[in-house]
Amino acid sequence: MSECILKENERIDDLDVNGFRIIQNPFCFCFGMDAVLLANFVKVSPKAKCIDIGTGTGVIPLISTAKNRGSHWTGLEVQSNMVDMASRSVELNDSGGRISIVEGDVRNVREIFKPCSFKVVTSNPPYMKQPAGLQSSSDTINISRAEIMASLEDVVSAASYLLPTRGTFAMVHRPSRLPEIMEVLLKYRLEPKRLQLVQPTRDKEANLVLIECVKEAGKELRLLPTLIVYKENGEYTEELLSYYR
Amino acid sequence: MSECILKENERIDDLDVNGFRIIQNPFCFCFGMDAVLLANFVKVSPKAKCIDIGTGTGVIPLISTAKNRGSHWTGLEVQSNMVDMASRSVELNDSGGRISIVEGDVRNVREIFKPCSFKVVTSNPPYMKQPAGLQSSSDTINISRAEIMASLEDVVSAASYLLPTRGTFAMVHRPSRLPEIMEVLLKYRLEPKRLQLVQPTRDKEANLVLIECVKEAGKELRLLPTLIVYKENGEYTEELLSYYR
Repeated sequence: MSECILKENERIDDLDVNGFRIIQNPFCFCFGMDAVLLANFVKVSPKAKCIDIGTGTGVIPLISTAKNRGSHWTGLEVQSNMVDMASRSVELNDSGGRISIVEGDVRNVREIFKPCSFKVVTSNPPYMKQPAGLQSSSDTINISRAEIMASLEDVVSAASYLLPTRGTFAMVHRPSRLPEIMEVLLKYRLEPKRLQLVQPTRDKEANLVLIECVKEAGKELRLLPTLIVYKENGEYTEELLSYYR
Repeated sequence: MSECILKENERIDDLDVNGFRIIQNPFCFCFGMDAVLLANFVKVSPKAKCIDIGTGTGVIPLISTAKNRGSHWTGLEVQSNMVDMASRSVELNDSGGRISIVEGDVRNVREIFKPCSFKVVTSNPPYMKQPAGLQSSSDTINISRAEIMASLEDVVSAASYLLPTRGTFAMVHRPSRLPEIMEVLLKYRLEPKRLQLVQPTRDKEANLVLIECVKEAGKELRLLPTLIVYKENGEYTEELLSYYR
């Protein structure tokens, strides 16, 4: 594939997995470590039918497919410019048979998909609550970062609808919102089963949390060892690098 | 004070803080690292009036008083043999003016204390759910370890009753029960504000969680750096030792 599929300001980045590449636009929203961590944290069997809610550039379906995690991924995305970019990345990686990018609003999943139609749901949702007074915005970066188009509850409610009993929902979010996250997950019968905190260094506070839930499972949460990103000398830790392999 | 205040099978242990000592009976329940961590984790001003729910041997009021955290502590305990032991430890440390051990059931706090009568509530409650079918037990170790006399919700509900708005509740518990803990805390308007996981080593799963809540506070949780107990060479880490100082 050539780079002629790029539009203005876009660039192609390596995903460092099986030669997969991704189209991004720094003026929109580029994927970060959180998406990579989530893609590698969630347990996905090679046969599972999966969906990523608010997929953006499609980074989670792309990494997962590159690693043979899941038989088919759907990437649901509300912003047409992102849908367009993600679709061209799927084409760039010849992955049309294993990834479908669908334009749609998480609040309308009940009209787009049948209930219980996926085994795994992932989401790297907007972390921030919508600022008071801000009613709407067409700005792509804001929609990716703040709860303008979809609240935490919208995402969790959609995940619960899309999953059968024993289906898996995994999410990356800010630890500062953990109490509310737990409350909403339990409200929608998604029982947290694995949780991992991510700290920038050994002595800094966690700034990300990875959570995996199983629908209607028993109550027992495992806390994986806290993931430290940087060593004291500023290099990445072995644990962090293992997520990228 | 002499050791003549000891009863059969009891011993006196050093608390390693300002010469304070504690009476324990290995056939009942001896305090562990969890109580020491909790006593040092919770923020307590020297002027605060405090209560420890299910105080056992009184270890949390004793350590706190030795460190001048809080102006007065009440230790509420349901088991008379523990009330007796804790009372003799208070006497042993000449702390009768600063610590009162009260015999009573957490489920009856509304009959024992007025609402909002403490600034800080602590608890190191039983970690395990009551085994199915076990209706009651008079065994002291079982009562200290499993939810025979008091469920998580009994403790949290009592804490909320005893605290005014902005009052502090701190607890140590098992991370495996974190989702349920969050749900119950929020139900009783105790907003988690500081949380710290405790891992035995850097690469082992957390087995304790320290949580501090503020009644009716805003939603924003801080995740303190995960506390690691042992270094790779088996020695205690500096962070752990700092809790004992």
